[in-house]
Formats: sequence, C-alpha cells, structure tokens
Amino acid sequence: MSSFTPNQADDIAIATIRTLSVDVVGKANSGHPGAPLGLAPVAHVLFSRFLKANPKNSKWFNRDRFVLSNGHACALQYVLLHLLGYQLSLDDLKAFRQLGSKTPGIEVTTGPLGQGFANGVGLAIAQAHLAAVYNKDGFNLINNYTYVFAGDGCLMEGVASEAASLAGHLQLGNLIVIYDDNHISIDGDTAVAFTENVEQRFLAYGWQVLHVNDGDKDLAGISDAIAEARKDSSKPTIIRLRTTIGYGSKAQGTHGVHGSPLKADDIAALKTKFGFPPDQTFLVPQATYDFFAEFGKRGAALEAEWNSLLAAYGQKYPAEHAELTRRIAGKLPENWEKSLPVYKPTDAAQASRKLSEIVLTAIIPELPELLGGSADLTGSNLTKVKNSVDFQPPSTGLGTYAGTYIRYGVREHAMGAIANGLHAYGGIIPFVATFLNFISYASGAVRLSALSGHQVIWVATHDSIGLGEDGPTHQPVETAIALRATPNLAFWRPADGNETSAAYYIALQSKSTPSVLSLSRQNLPNLEGSHFEGAIRGGYVLHEEANEDLTIVSTGSEVSIAVEAAGKLKAEGIKTRVVSLPSWLTFDQQDQQYRLSVLRSGAPILSLEALSTYGWQKYSHEQYGLTGWGASGPYQKVYEKFGITGSNIAAVGRKVVDFYKQKGTPVVSPLVKAI
Amino acid sequence: MSSFTPNQADDIAIATIRTLSVDVVGKANSGHPGAPLGLAPVAHVLFSRFLKANPKNSKWFNRDRFVLSNGHACALQYVLLHLLGYQLSLDDLKAFRQLGSKTPGIEVTTGPLGQGFANGVGLAIAQAHLAAVYNKDGFNLINNYTYVFAGDGCLMEGVASEAASLAGHLQLGNLIVIYDDNHISIDGDTAVAFTENVEQRFLAYGWQVLHVNDGDKDLAGISDAIAEARKDSSKPTIIRLRTTIGYGSKAQGTHGVHGSPLKADDIAALKTKFGFPPDQTFLVPQATYDFFAEFGKRGAALEAEWNSLLAAYGQKYPAEHAELTRRIAGKLPENWEKSLPVYKPTDAAQASRKLSEIVLTAIIPELPELLGGSADLTGSNLTKVKNSVDFQPPSTGLGTYAGTYIRYGVREHAMGAIANGLHAYGGIIPFVATFLNFISYASGAVRLSALSGHQVIWVATHDSIGLGEDGPTHQPVETAIALRATPNLAFWRPADGNETSAAYYIALQSKSTPSVLSLSRQNLPNLEGSHFEGAIRGGYVLHEEANEDLTIVSTGSEVSIAVEAAGKLKAEGIKTRVVSLPSWLTFDQQDQQYRLSVLRSGAPILSLEALSTYGWQKYSHEQYGLTGWGASGPYQKVYEKFGITGSNIAAVGRKVVDFYKQKGTPVVSPLVKAI
Ligand SMILES: [Ca+2]
Ligand SMILES: [Ca+2]
Repeated sequence: MSSFTPNQADDIAIATIRTLSVDVVGKANSGHPGAPLGLAPVAHVLFSRFLKANPKNSKWFNRDRFVLSNGHACALQYVLLHLLGYQLSLDDLKAFRQLGSKTPGIEVTTGPLGQGFANGVGLAIAQAHLAAVYNKDGFNLINNYTYVFAGDGCLMEGVASEAASLAGHLQLGNLIVIYDDNHISIDGDTAVAFTENVEQRFLAYGWQVLHVNDGDKDLAGISDAIAEARKDSSKPTIIRLRTTIGYGSKAQGTHGVHGSPLKADDIAALKTKFGFPPDQTFLVPQATYDFFAEFGKRGAALEAEWNSLLAAYGQKYPAEHAELTRRIAGKLPENWEKSLPVYKPTDAAQASRKLSEIVLTAIIPELPELLGGSADLTGSNLTKVKNSVDFQPPSTGLGTYAGTYIRYGVREHAMGAIANGLHAYGGIIPFVATFLNFISYASGAVRLSALSGHQVIWVATHDSIGLGEDGPTHQPVETAIALRATPNLAFWRPADGNETSAAYYIALQSKSTPSVLSLSRQNLPNLEGSHFEGAIRGGYVLHEEANEDLTIVSTGSEVSIAVEAAGKLKAEGIKTRVVSLPSWLTFDQQDQQYRLSVLRSGAPILSLEALSTYGWQKYSHEQYGLTGWGASGPYQKVYEKFGITGSNIAAVGRKVVDFYKQKGTPVVSPLVKAI
Repeated sequence: MSSFTPNQADDIAIATIRTLSVDVVGKANSGHPGAPLGLAPVAHVLFSRFLKANPKNSKWFNRDRFVLSNGHACALQYVLLHLLGYQLSLDDLKAFRQLGSKTPGIEVTTGPLGQGFANGVGLAIAQAHLAAVYNKDGFNLINNYTYVFAGDGCLMEGVASEAASLAGHLQLGNLIVIYDDNHISIDGDTAVAFTENVEQRFLAYGWQVLHVNDGDKDLAGISDAIAEARKDSSKPTIIRLRTTIGYGSKAQGTHGVHGSPLKADDIAALKTKFGFPPDQTFLVPQATYDFFAEFGKRGAALEAEWNSLLAAYGQKYPAEHAELTRRIAGKLPENWEKSLPVYKPTDAAQASRKLSEIVLTAIIPELPELLGGSADLTGSNLTKVKNSVDFQPPSTGLGTYAGTYIRYGVREHAMGAIANGLHAYGGIIPFVATFLNFISYASGAVRLSALSGHQVIWVATHDSIGLGEDGPTHQPVETAIALRATPNLAFWRPADGNETSAAYYIALQSKSTPSVLSLSRQNLPNLEGSHFEGAIRGGYVLHEEANEDLTIVSTGSEVSIAVEAAGKLKAEGIKTRVVSLPSWLTFDQQDQQYRLSVLRSGAPILSLEALSTYGWQKYSHEQYGLTGWGASGPYQKVYEKFGITGSNIAAVGRKVVDFYKQKGTPVVSPLVKAI
C-alpha cells in the first residue's frame, strides 16, 4: 500500500514552485532554473508530507535538517521557504542574487559542489550522537531526519565520496540523500564523464539504495521511497530519482537549461503548460498558500509538543536537561577556563602537539560539547584523550554513538565538511586533526567554515620543517599564509604551554570563527616571559628592552630561536626585543595603541618563521624564513640547513641593524599606514 | 595453467627485499617498515616477471611506469631500484631520509595519499593518447603498462575516488592497480573507519576487479592476477591483494609496524626467520644480485629493440617521427610563439577568459602536445576550441583516444593529480580548467605539481568578485596569495590581450613550473601601454610619469581601474604611474636594477587588487583590496560596494600622497631591503 494520499492542491503547488523558480531566476537575470524545475515534485512531496520544521522558529532544535547540496538550485529553496511561511517575502524573492539579499532558514551554505552532501553527514552524526547522549526511555527528544538533495556534480566530487564511505561505516540511519539523476551536468550529458553505477557504489559503501524512475510525475513513488528510507534506521539511504532537468521548458533535458535564465517565450510557454497565465510573474495561487499553511501548523504543533517533552525531561533529568539546554544555547559552562594548564619556564620542554593533548585532557571532562577526531593520525595528532570512547555504531563493538571520538579515516576533506555540519547542527563544538600540510586537502571545506562562521577547531600538527624526515611533501610552506589570508579564520601558532592554553581559550570562545592550531612535532621550551594574558591578545612582547636596536617577531617553534638570537645579540651590545605573534587575526582585533606598543617604531623589526615569508611584510621591515621547499632529514639538521638557528639569526639581526643605521632615517612601525 | 614459472632465487630475492627494507629504515632510525615487508612478494613478482624498464636508462620512453602511491613505503622502492641495477648504491640506501639523499628512477613524487593513484591514471591516459596518435600498423611504439601500488589510505582519499571513476569511464586498459589490503592504517584496524566493499565500488566504476587472498606467499596467484589484468585491455584493473603488514616482524599484522623502525631484537629475529644472519646489515646475497641482473638485461634488450622500431618508423613516417621525438625531447616547435595574438588599445574589450580561448585557438594547431580539459566548466572556462575532439574511448561514440580534450567531470582534485601524471609521462603539456576559487579543491595536487616541477597550466577563470552573482562561495579572496606563496608556481593575472599572450608564452616555456592563469569573467579593455615584452618580465611600467607623486601597482581586471584613477589624479595635478605586475614569480626573477626601475623609490606605491591584500606589502607601501568576503550581485555593483572604482581609488591615492608628504621622510622602494 502506498504511503501517499494525494491532495487536490498537489499539482498547483508543484506548478507554483516551478513557475516561481523560473520567475526568480528571470527577474535576477542570473541563476539556475534547470534543477528547480526538475526537483519541484520531490521538494513538494518531502516538505508537504514528511519534513518537520516550524517556519516561525527556524531554529527549533529537533527540526528535520534539509540541505540543498546542489546549491546552484537555491531558487528552489528560497521559493519553498516563502511558500512554507518562513520570513521571506515575495519582494525578497525578487531581490534574488542582488546585494544584501536574505537567506533565512538555510542550514548550511552550499554551492561548492559536494560540500552539502558531507555537511549532511555531519548533521546526521550530530543527531545520532546527541540522541545517544540525551534521549531516555519515553523521551525521544532528538530524533530528526537529515535530508540532502544532491546532483551529479556533488556525487562526482571526492569530498562526497569520502563522506559517503564514512556515513556507510557509521550506519547513519536518519540520513536520507535524494540524488537528482538528471543525466546532465554543465558539460552536457553525463555520458561524457560520469558513467559509473552510482547505485552499486553506494551499496558498496553499505547504504540502503532506492530509486524512483519518474521523478517528474510519480508523486506516490517519491513518497514511498522516502517512507521506506525512513523505515530503515540501520543505514543511510540514497534515493536515485530520475528527473528531467528544466522540466517544462522547451530545452528540458539539456544543459541549456542549467545555468541561464529561460527566455521570455519559453517562460510564457512553460506557464501556459502548467495552467498559469503566461503574462503574470510571481503569481502564487491562494490554493498553494493554503496548502502549505498546513506545513506551518504541523510544525508549530510539533514544536509545542517537543517543548512540553523537554520540560518534562527537565523534571525527571534535571542535570541532563541543564546540560543539553546550555549546549543548545551555545554557552560554555562557568569557569571552564580554570581547567586550562598554566606553565612556568622551569617546566619540561614539550612538543606543542603534546601541549595540545594536555589541554584536551584537561578540558574534555568540562566540555561535553567537544566532539573530536582525526583523519587517521590519532597517535601523531594526540587528539584522543585517555578513556575517551569512539563514536561508532554499537554493532561494531568498537564504541557507541555516545562516544566523542570520531575515526574519520584518511578523509581530510570530508572531515572538514562534516565538522561544518556538526557545528551547524548545534550543541557541538567539533575539533578535527591532521598534519598542517594536509589541511590543504580540505581547503574547500575550511573556506566554507570561515565564510559560514562555523566554530571548528583544527588540531594541525607537524607544522613545519620541524617534522624532519617525512620531507617536503609533508612540510608546510605556503599553508600558513593561505589560512591567515582567509577572512574570519584564526590561525594560531603557539610557542609554548601558556600560548597553547591561550589558543584553545580563544578558539573555544569564538562561536562563529574556525581556528587552526598549528602545532609542532618537536619539543619546545616553556619560555621566560610567555603569558596567557599576552597570548590571548594574539601578540605581545615576550622579552622587553628599552631603546632597542632590533625587534624580532616570531611564532611557534621559532620563538625560542628568536630568544636565543636575542641573547647572543645582547652579549654584543645589540638590544633586541622579542615579540610573539601567535594569531594575526586576534592581534589585528586589538586596539591600535596596543598594537603599536607591541610592534613599535624606533628600531627595525625582523620576522622569523620556518615557513614562507609572505604576509610578514605587514608586521615587519625584514623577513627571514623559507624561500622554497623544505628538506628531508633529522629536524635539527634541516633547521641548520635553512639557517634557522640562534647564531645565524643573530647574524641576520646584526645585518638588519647595520642596514637601518646606515639608512639613517627614523624607523617607523609597519603598522603606521595611510589607509 | 599458471602464468608463473618459479625460480630457485625467488625466496632469497624476496627475503633480501624484506631484510634490506628493514635495514634501510633501521639505519635512518625513521621510516615505514610495515608496507615494504608486506609488499615484497608482489614487488618481486611484478618486477622480475612483468615490468619492462631499463635501469641503465630510466627515461626510456616506452618503459612501464611504476607508481608507489602509498609513498611512505618508499624504502621498498629504493631497495628495488638498487637491486634492479639503477644508479643507487648501497651507500645511497644508507643515506635514506637524510639531507641530500638520492631518488633516481622515481616516476612521480608521492607521499600525500591518493596522489599517486591519480597520477597513475594520468600516466595511463598519456599512454592511451600517444598510442592512438602515433602507433601505426606494425609500429606498436607506445604500449607500456602503468602499475600502481596503493594502500588503504590512498583508497580512502577522495582524489583517488574521483580518478577511479574517471579511469573506469575512460576504459584505461593498460592501468593496473595493486591494492595492498592489509586491514591496517595508522589508527589501527581499518574496521574503525573503512568497512566499505572496495571490490564492489570498483566494479561500480567499471573496473576489472581481481583478488589474491594470500599476498604474503602465493607468488603464482599474484602472477596469474597480473597476467589476467594485462589481458583485459578494455578496462583498468584493480587487484585486491590480501597481505600482512610487517610480515616477518613480531608485531606483524598490527599498526605497530607501520611507521617506526623495528627494534633490534625484532630485526634479528626477522632475519633469522628469512635465513639471513641476524647480525649483518645491508646484506645482499650474490644470488639476489644475479637474479635481478636478468631484469637489466631484459630491459636493455627491449629498449634496443624499441630504438630500432623507432628508427624504422622514422623511415616510413618521417613527419610523425619528427613530431614524436620532438615531443619526447620536450622541445617546442620553432616559431610557435609567432601564433600568439597581439592587440592594440583600439581592439574590443574582452574577458580574459575569452582572450585565453583566442590564444588556445591560435596555438593548439601549432602544439599537438597540448592536452586540455575542464572540470565540467567547459562553456565557462572556454577551453575547448572549435573542431577539437574529445579524448574518449571510441566505444562511446563521443570521441577517440587521439582526441585532445578531456572531460574531467566535477573532479578538480583528480584533474590536478592526473595532469601531474600526464606531464610526468612526457611528450604532453596538460592544461586544465576550473574557476579560480575551486583550485582550492585541488590544492594537494597543485602543491605537488610545484614541488615536483610539473608543467601544468591551470586556466582559472571567474577570478574575483567580478564574477558577480554567484557570490562569496565562488569569489576567491585568499586563493591568489596561497598560490603566489607556493614555491615554483607561477600565478599570472593578465590585464588584457597582450598580457594574456605573455602569460601563455612564459607558461609554455617553463618546462618545470606549473602556472595558474587567473582570468576574468567580465570584459577588460586592451590597455594603452600594455606590451608583451613588459609582461613577460612579470611586471612593467604600463603608464610612466616623471617625478611621480604616486605609483599604483595592480593586476588583471583592476589595472584598467588603476589607469582610470591615475587619469583622475593627473587632472588634479597628482602625477601617478601605473605598474602592471601580472606574475610575482617572474618579476622576482628579473635583475634588481630592473625591478627597482619598475617599483622605484621617490613616491609611495599603492597596490590595488580585488582580492586579499596579503602579500602586497612586499611590493607596495599601501594596499587596497578586500578585507573580507565578496558579495553576490551584478559585478559592477559589487565593485562599487568595495570601493574598487576609478573615483574611489583616486580618493585613496590622494590620501596616500598626503600621508607620505606629511611624513616628510624620503620614500624608499619596498624592494630595498637588508636581507
Ligand atoms: Ca545533474
Ligand atoms: Ca593499509
């Protein structure tokens, strides 16, 4: 028996979605009409029959999550949000793709292909995890589904393949992907490049695989497939939905309808075909509004019911209730920061990756919202603290869904995109780990993290030539500047224990900024003059001298080398300050007076970092670092080869001091600028 | 009947590979013994029974290509190269992972997981393509196989999934991947994260899938699988080879043997087990040398035979012979550059992506070595010139293997890694295309391209906020500085037609440097003062003024805005030079005198680019650009929003001039430095 009960408004509602999408793209004279026309029926069935959400409160915690991974189809989503009763007016639709246009009720930013698919896996992990932690008998508090629409492009991207393999392993039963199999991508028929058997591939990943052969008209088939997908709670589901791109357009079924507005005569013919007056735009029949009003009513009732359940839960499980509601609100517990370790210079030298492990060991008991993991480098990243449990399907015997440590496998890109989904869900602060150099594999996700304001913490170890023997293929050079130049991304390179605590402190306080903690493989001394209060400002004077001849500004593992150089110079009568600048983003947010007191005028400033010197010109007059690739060898020898030693930097410092003395003009801080 | 004829030296040869690998890692006190121990039998069978190569000439063109995608197993490859008679002595093996250690006979640099797999797909495409172009009846000149060893890590990476899907589509019959299925990755048993059915996945991609259940001992089974793989010329093959990681060690079968040297007692026990004296290191029995000497003899004879065939080919097909040998030698044809278009300021404004298409249209007939393609953005990147034929399996009816245009699908990362393989093969200059922003998806491959010196040309269109409506998810901000900071990578941002020709000219002359051509979606005027001779130096004075008050340095689509601003400033009596700096790398290679003549002392220099300002401090005193993300809207409005217009830049220029006048000290070029 079919799950589907037809409604007399179905056809007109679908036609409205289609015509409105075409008008939205047409008015903007820019956008993608093809996918909205093809996906209108499934969107209609999904939203009208299955999806639970409250348009009046788009943040209701147990709402179903919907992700449009083929984000170029966004006209579809905006149209739906309007029809469903979200805060998006017809006038807002008319401002599509214009400056300042609105986007409420969107779970994650998509567009770059494959990201939304992997975000969806993150959303589903979050649901499974929070359900395992907080649901109790009679309190099925967290049980939403995650629905993802994905196109051919998404499924061709490696990030989606990685995420799909992991999702299958994790048996994420509440994840349902609808694959818009329209045989078309920008280059034309998918026959030119994408002829794999997608169903067989997802079976290989361990997914439930369903299909609907006529996605253009078979509403009952669509409904049955979604119902079947929901029933199987032991596996994620992909529904291969055969659709016609641009359905209703004269060029339907071709890439001609993918990425450009339809022509006026085509729009008119399409509207006529769907029973709409050809000369009217942005027409929404009252029957359509009335039909979708039911969605809002249902959602409001569901939320009210859930709120009651949550209140009852609070009576019976006050501690869990307090913790869950705190997490939903995105608030850290009081005094959590008291658990951060503090160091004295006499404490033993340690690798900053180890210092990171010490922080994690201290804070994880305080912060249950931390959900960590590594891309198969756990023992190197030092991200799994003692007694932590793996996030695993219970059937594997390797952990539980309540576990807080995710084994991402060698899948950096998916890891980054999944972490974005974890944060988007709410109640979770994800941290993820790999070598700093391999964040580049995940650039697409990291960029979206920063753009969307996802609080994701990257534990990025082995952060320079200091990793030694693995050599140039593993030694970052350009990675740091790439991350520093990414807006709203905090790149931290702490020099010792106190600075590592500071980096975690700011990263955990920054609710809408991702952070990358760049950490050493090699041991670093705890420095005289390092302090938490300075480090949380992003930069501070580690070693002060009055009337200095030189300031060396440095980060991470090179700060102790700068200190050593300063000592040697001092012995020769060259007074040298040392500034530690662990986070440019954070330092740039300090007031001008403070910044100018740290990087002050009067003497030349020399930067030192075992990475590319690009970018350091902003904070220094002279730069010392790598001008090319690193080298393979024991790390001390590699540092020597590149002249990053106390004695060579002292020699470089002398040269700098002499040069500016000869120049004779006053030395002005590089921070003093006209614009 | 088995393909395998046992040899009495088989066991001792395999034992030598194993013990020598262990000694190499032990002496370095760093490295990965596990995979070499597990892969020794298959390596032995492959090299002794199948692989065609001449150790005395590692560049013989028709050699079989061997790629160790699980590059951490490189001790295995170095040991083999030594035993097979390549220029690698026992002393060289003792210098493993030390500064200056040698790596001859390696086809591609691997290590970052998944790259070698995709490089292998590129090598196989190159073979199929050159065979289709040059082989003739009786002249099977180019028919080598490409063998790839890959581990669990490689197969988890998205870049390998993308490449595998494309390889299946392309039916690359001469590609044979051996999957080291040892159930172990760094985090332990692959059961923690990688439980998909790999065989089924590759069947879904259209591969031939074989397996060998006892890769530790079943030499005949290994041989039969390779023989069967070679027989099927209609599909790529993956052989799932079940092995025991660290075979022979006390900790065999665990991740304990993956990435650290074996302990002394373990090494002694292992040697005893394999019949070697436990107290000797780097021992190679003469029987092993004698056995592998046959490999060298066979290879030398095969090359001699091939050289004769090539000579006979030259008699019968002199034109093809001349072209093929020219391509193998990596020489461009005489006077090819005469075909590059030249422009006058009166020529119509065009988008630089269109100017790129005009160049490609002009040079493709001159340069058959160009093998192009796009990641499903052909119509936007404008990379397919008229009448070009798709590189496709003939059975698809969509093209031929002689075709020069590859449909990569939405697979940027694989595209980049495949292009590295295409270039590594020889005789081919690959160009690939996507939006500039999505090069970030391929960062892992781009970095290796620059590190390994692969001449890959990226046609990177839609290179700024100038793409307009697609918005911040598609608008690069940090991408340019990330690429500019990558050593040995030439990032070009041409301002008009002449500069586009210059960018292609240098990119095509640079045999061991990848280039990224950053190109606009929007139209750009041909500029008064732009010239090829200046642009090929990476930077030049586009508009000169004596005793200037200001210099504006800019690139690409913003140069014409700088010119407009300079005109406005001139009208107010502020003399403004304009410098175009399309390629930092190329400009930095010019002599100091030239560079100082372009970016000279005497007046402030203001940089202008619709991207992050990071890095521009190296070339300018003041920087104007984006300080955050872009915005969605018609592109002119987006430029206005960010103040990148002639009139606003003129206002900024005035401010800069005033500031440095008030400062009162001489303005020194930012290129004048102490170090
Ligand atoms: Ca499609
Ligand atoms: Ca493995």
